[in-house]
Amino acid sequence: MADADSFLESTDGTREESMCATYLALCEHGYADLTIQRIGEEFPKSKSLIYHHYDGKDKLLRDFLSFMLTQFEDAAPFEDAMPFEDADDPGDHLDAILDHALAPSASETRREFTRAMIELRGQAAHDAKYREQFTRHDRFFPGRIATLVEAGIEAGVIKQVDPDAVATFLMATFNGSMVERVTSDADAAAAVREEADAYVRSVLLEDG
Amino acid sequence: MADADSFLESTDGTREESMCATYLALCEHGYADLTIQRIGEEFPKSKSLIYHHYDGKDKLLRDFLSFMLTQFEDAAPFEDAMPFEDADDPGDHLDAILDHALAPSASETRREFTRAMIELRGQAAHDAKYREQFTRHDRFFPGRIATLVEAGIEAGVIKQVDPDAVATFLMATFNGSMVERVTSDADAAAAVREEADAYVRSVLLEDG
Repeated sequence: MADADSFLESTDGTREESMCATYLALCEHGYADLTIQRIGEEFPKSKSLIYHHYDGKDKLLRDFLSFMLTQFEDAAPFEDAMPFEDADDPGDHLDAILDHALAPSASETRREFTRAMIELRGQAAHDAKYREQFTRHDRFFPGRIATLVEAGIEAGVIKQVDPDAVATFLMATFNGSMVERVTSDADAAAAVREEADAYVRSVLLEDG
Repeated sequence: MADADSFLESTDGTREESMCATYLALCEHGYADLTIQRIGEEFPKSKSLIYHHYDGKDKLLRDFLSFMLTQFEDAAPFEDAMPFEDADDPGDHLDAILDHALAPSASETRREFTRAMIELRGQAAHDAKYREQFTRHDRFFPGRIATLVEAGIEAGVIKQVDPDAVATFLMATFNGSMVERVTSDADAAAAVREEADAYVRSVLLEDG
């Protein structure tokens, strides 16, 4: 499974190199100061190749957003979630997801990745094409979590909750935590993880 | 108490008019396309007055962020929260806060305000001065909520939870919901409100 941390390593082919150059330029300069010139400076081949592939900065950045979201989605450990039947504690099942999304501390690489995601997310407030992609993303994660919750209800270890509502709530918590992590120093991550666990144990689990 | 919706009405004096002009320009053009020229176009007096008051766009925008956060903080109905002793249902106490922060639907004025806040928040990923202000903001709200939770514990209606952790968790949910509301069309607000209520009743309230 791909990891967000391996983002910089996947540099095969021009698209990947364009994506990598965009990422590096975004991390260094921030969205507001991002120019195609600066992206070109991070590109290892002739800059004209970027222009050949992309009809301007807007198209490049939209492809970049799609690339980032895919990386992010592939990094979530849904496949690592233990089947409820095999878990000693049914809470373990959701723990891998919560640990991933709400890790109390994060590597500088992960913070940088999150920073880039949040800057792109900010653009979606005024750009319908960005919003379209974040809409898909904001449905993808809750969809996967709802499936886990449904399996838990089937297995008799999760109460008769509304799986979609639960998943949507957790997603809002993940998004809020990501935003706070890179836009404030209030250091909320450990407390959010702790209370998300209290929510899972009190609201979801039959024997919480 | 001020309301975010009354933002546009407080136009006394040059500072307020500068803030109002910045707000209108931000709403119309988005942060990425915001220029002092465009702010000037929304300003009812001579543009030179803006330059007289502010040494460039950065200083103006920093003052604007501070103004926005104050408006936002003043709009929260903390003073409307009923004392636990007077409430028929102890849940009513936190309901006013949750209703305000997680309203399932929002007026276009409120959405526009939220959009502006989220765009400014995105900048904090790369601007230490913005991050400083959001750090203060991300501590202000949880501080007020923690005080409510402490009062509930004192009154014997809230369990022996960690008030700061609870408040921090709710704040992440509020921030996530705000971000999603204006950057995706996944329409999460009603489900988030519903599960926040489940959290309050199951994790916090003694007789939930």
